[in-house]
Amino acid sequence: RRMPLSEEKNGACDGSIYVNNPHLDSMKDDILYHFNLGTSTHDLPAMFGDVKFVCVGGSPWRMRSFTEYIAKELGLSEPNAEFPNICEGTDRYAMYKVGPVLSVSHGMGIPSISIMLHELIKLLYHAHCTDVTVMRIGTSGGIGLKPGTVVVTKQSVDSVFQPRFEQIILGKPVVRSTELDAELAEELLQCGKDLAEFETVIGNTMCTLDFYEGQARLDGAFCSYSEEDKQSYLAEAYAAGVRNIEMESSVFAAMCKLSNLRAAVVCVTLLDRLKGDQMTSSHDILHNYQQRPQVLVGHYIKKKLNAYKKS
Amino acid sequence: RRMPLSEEKNGACDGSIYVNNPHLDSMKDDILYHFNLGTSTHDLPAMFGDVKFVCVGGSPWRMRSFTEYIAKELGLSEPNAEFPNICEGTDRYAMYKVGPVLSVSHGMGIPSISIMLHELIKLLYHAHCTDVTVMRIGTSGGIGLKPGTVVVTKQSVDSVFQPRFEQIILGKPVVRSTELDAELAEELLQCGKDLAEFETVIGNTMCTLDFYEGQARLDGAFCSYSEEDKQSYLAEAYAAGVRNIEMESSVFAAMCKLSNLRAAVVCVTLLDRLKGDQMTSSHDILHNYQQRPQVLVGHYIKKKLNAYKKS
Repeated sequence: RRMPLSEEKNGACDGSIYVNNPHLDSMKDDILYHFNLGTSTHDLPAMFGDVKFVCVGGSPWRMRSFTEYIAKELGLSEPNAEFPNICEGTDRYAMYKVGPVLSVSHGMGIPSISIMLHELIKLLYHAHCTDVTVMRIGTSGGIGLKPGTVVVTKQSVDSVFQPRFEQIILGKPVVRSTELDAELAEELLQCGKDLAEFETVIGNTMCTLDFYEGQARLDGAFCSYSEEDKQSYLAEAYAAGVRNIEMESSVFAAMCKLSNLRAAVVCVTLLDRLKGDQMTSSHDILHNYQQRPQVLVGHYIKKKLNAYKKS
Repeated sequence: RRMPLSEEKNGACDGSIYVNNPHLDSMKDDILYHFNLGTSTHDLPAMFGDVKFVCVGGSPWRMRSFTEYIAKELGLSEPNAEFPNICEGTDRYAMYKVGPVLSVSHGMGIPSISIMLHELIKLLYHAHCTDVTVMRIGTSGGIGLKPGTVVVTKQSVDSVFQPRFEQIILGKPVVRSTELDAELAEELLQCGKDLAEFETVIGNTMCTLDFYEGQARLDGAFCSYSEEDKQSYLAEAYAAGVRNIEMESSVFAAMCKLSNLRAAVVCVTLLDRLKGDQMTSSHDILHNYQQRPQVLVGHYIKKKLNAYKKS
């Protein structure tokens, strides 16, 4: 089952999870430090071998609520069942599982999700998982969209609207593709149409290194540009097909592609950045918006599992 | 009290907190979204006006434990007192306060601490705080140091060992200095000598964008370099004065400098990266190491407050 893979290569078609690291096989033990799990302390194939869908999102509370939701949708839990946090020994990430669905929080920003994905990919590899689909369900700022619109990412682009992620290795930049699964994105868009509960669109997603200056916000502790500069930057982004802005999609796309994981990014827009920078909607409205990616992805998983049962 | 500041400039000597953003004064209300606080919903001067020390660290659990520790050290709490999480309405960050000491978690990586610092700087500004010292207490990987050694950062350097932080604004890089307060670093080193409980050194800290490939680890999901490549990169870092590696110090130093905040970075080393990559020490030993920056910074705060009382 273990494959020696010494060079960067992208997805083959046999459904296996790749770790692109020849050193791993010579390690007696692998400690997944930020999950508080390890190959010598946990039976990872028994715990995770049946995982087919992994949903990730920034907030630990949201990932717990997603697990409760999906358990109900799939008819896999008693009412009011409690789901233990599999990473309860650490406060870095939270992880929940119900049936074939694993749910993991990743914090905010590229470095935080990158640590989680390194350990998640190794976990899926050690657990001998196959045919896994990974979906990020998150929040974002929209550009020219009605708040509450769900954006399924076509391409994740950087601050100059290019579909690439730059990884620094030994002090030197290595550029990686941020291509996502186009078929999966179309299937998710179709789920949005099936549901007809909220607007769902496909568009490019800009992934930035921070929330304030990197997203041209005027309300941070520092701001050296004008409202006009902001509007002109967001207009350029819109012209490049960008419909929303968040902080994790580029490294998520790059790492999933390197690991042969089918991947999608599904984010709701909490506001229209052309009209403002602050999150002024009520708590209830924002809470409702945040459930939309969960509902969309939940519908997709249910549809897939039903199709699988029938086949 | 409010100062219009339209250009990037660094610390003056009057002790005020700077926000370098001319737009803020025209906002009726300022929502500190990721803290779940705001100027129209909370009386920030009453809640935070007396803050003189802010301690920040990645883990919310560690920041709560620091607050319990410092309360006891300063004689500011009943035994077994509970400290409410001031940001309890959100799971993005946790915040605790006892007397003049505020304690805030920041998650992992530059983007995560950057969001927190934008909102912290605005919070201190709205609360009219003066003469504030901010200290990051964290964990790190050491280079050529005995595990458990505490490193007070002299300079925070990037992956090619330069003391700079690159901020992307409107798609273009802006380079900022990562200079920290040299006098404060010396005072903290002296506190280490006063305590004589563990080794404390001053050295450069390399701040990376990820934990695995960016730090030349051999145990991530991907690794395209050899053990020799790793050792030679770490040797270069050591020759440039780098004694530890973490993921937040550069933007922390840059933002504090822009805001006129005295700042220091105090991190314990959990392992010696020349000897390995995995955190193999026992839970108890790692837990003991993690308390050392708290003890050092606690001693410093106590010393300062005692000196203030006497003067």
